[in-house]
Amino acid sequence: METRKKVRIGVIGGGSPELKFRQIAFEVGKLIAEKGAILICGGLGGVMEATSQGAKEAGGLTVGILPGNNPDQANPYIDIPIATNMGHSRNSLVALNSDVLIAIDGQYGTLSEIAFGCIYRKKIIGLGSWDIKGVIPAETPEEAIKLAFSS
Amino acid sequence: METRKKVRIGVIGGGSPELKFRQIAFEVGKLIAEKGAILICGGLGGVMEATSQGAKEAGGLTVGILPGNNPDQANPYIDIPIATNMGHSRNSLVALNSDVLIAIDGQYGTLSEIAFGCIYRKKIIGLGSWDIKGVIPAETPEEAIKLAFSS
Amino acid sequence: METRKKVRIGVIGGGSPELKFRQIAFEVGKLIAEKGAILICGGLGGVMEATSQGAKEAGGLTVGILPGNNPDQANPYIDIPIATNMGHSRNSLVALNSDVLIAIDGQYGTLSEIAFGCIYRKKIIGLGSWDIKGVIPAETPEEAIKLAFSS
Amino acid sequence: METRKKVRIGVIGGGSPELKFRQIAFEVGKLIAEKGAILICGGLGGVMEATSQGAKEAGGLTVGILPGNNPDQANPYIDIPIATNMGHSRNSLVALNSDVLIAIDGQYGTLSEIAFGCIYRKKIIGLGSWDIKGVIPAETPEEAIKLAFSS
Repeated sequence: METRKKVRIGVIGGGSPELKFRQIAFEVGKLIAEKGAILICGGLGGVMEATSQGAKEAGGLTVGILPGNNPDQANPYIDIPIATNMGHSRNSLVALNSDVLIAIDGQYGTLSEIAFGCIYRKKIIGLGSWDIKGVIPAETPEEAIKLAFSS
Repeated sequence: METRKKVRIGVIGGGSPELKFRQIAFEVGKLIAEKGAILICGGLGGVMEATSQGAKEAGGLTVGILPGNNPDQANPYIDIPIATNMGHSRNSLVALNSDVLIAIDGQYGTLSEIAFGCIYRKKIIGLGSWDIKGVIPAETPEEAIKLAFSS
Repeated sequence: METRKKVRIGVIGGGSPELKFRQIAFEVGKLIAEKGAILICGGLGGVMEATSQGAKEAGGLTVGILPGNNPDQANPYIDIPIATNMGHSRNSLVALNSDVLIAIDGQYGTLSEIAFGCIYRKKIIGLGSWDIKGVIPAETPEEAIKLAFSS
Repeated sequence: METRKKVRIGVIGGGSPELKFRQIAFEVGKLIAEKGAILICGGLGGVMEATSQGAKEAGGLTVGILPGNNPDQANPYIDIPIATNMGHSRNSLVALNSDVLIAIDGQYGTLSEIAFGCIYRKKIIGLGSWDIKGVIPAETPEEAIKLAFSS
């Protein structure tokens, strides 16, 4: 399928997750790539890096929307780093450029992305993340992906 | 006191609140001005307008950090409109430019501002707003102001 | 006059100007305040600091739209610092929030502000600044102010 | 070559160019793709669309950094649209995410991108564009590409 027509799934989550959430993020990234979707994320470490690695190992395309001013700050599994130089305000752009968001664990940065996702009327799936009205909880990466791609 | 040295209190909340919350926002704005603090807000209607009106009636100074590209879009009680042309991403700047945040009612825009407030390590007081870890609940405008100015 | 109704004059220019341009910037700031207008600038040093000092000595109001994430980074003559955390992209907001721009000396940052001023259809006066179509040259601070306030 | 390691060439220019400049932009896009580089641009019409079309016809990868809030606003030859919702301030990000800039024709938007390119210390090649210190003039698309890839 043409790159432009592919679904874009945003994965959001903390920079310093427990191992369990890294593994979940990896699995989610792998499944996104296997579905032929593009992975959008914040481009840094933790959940962002693990999910990017998962997507790359399954042959996917990964976009990292970075807070800083240097594309090289992206984790090594990002194909297309976009430096915004907006700091945490870039969380808004991660939500804006995703068709669906999957939140994994996460602290207040993730909460801001969930809030923007709701503002922009995106579907948001949660895996061990914030229990907020508007977040659809899932138990496993497979369930999260199923929910993400259901209409 | 010099303008530069004044405390800056951000008031965040929805654009279409119930009358009750407009009244609370008005009262909070009035108390902020009476304390000699500057009011920071998103510059538009609803809670933002009511709190600006309260602050102006008590002789305060009001700053509106706007989503659009036209300073004239600010409500009539804003002294210093700042057009950001960033849309909802400007919510980050409302939090960044406040010493303390008072959240009144509010939907997902307010939630994003609370999240940024937590990211930027600001004290956040809630009046009928989101029940989130990091938000200190208050029952009345007076209590909110007392909490805002306590150290 | 009400703060909201005052004209807003943006002064743009480099952070490390020659003494001559500091003196011109100081004089321009003083004249802006004497006219009852608000000074908008980038909030940092050099031309921005000198013009803010001039405006403050004449009793004016000064707004500094900062590139960083800390309002305290503003020069000491800024009354209302606005932290944008957008780096150089904040140059766009300096132009957007000014009714007229006065460019004094300056390098590429100033050029970007002139370009945004032209995009936003602002009148732009130049004092020893870029010789670009769209910039009206002036010889003295007095002439610049006269041009800024003529219709 | 891995996507991440590819050179990223930004092409900047107006939305309503003469036919001559559309043809030049098309040719530049084609040559960028033939060199194996990624095309970065503002994602809209005119020079941006023509250069994207050229890059796509030569099998390249195209990224469009958009002013609005909707990735679908990108021209049809953009593979990876990035909505910034920053209006003209996004010009800063086009420059920031390019290793080299090629300016073709263009008005004040292009001038702002040239200015940011200079701020971010990027090499800038001009084809019938602004005659500004810091822009290296070229006569033909081939010469522009040669200059862009020379070290």
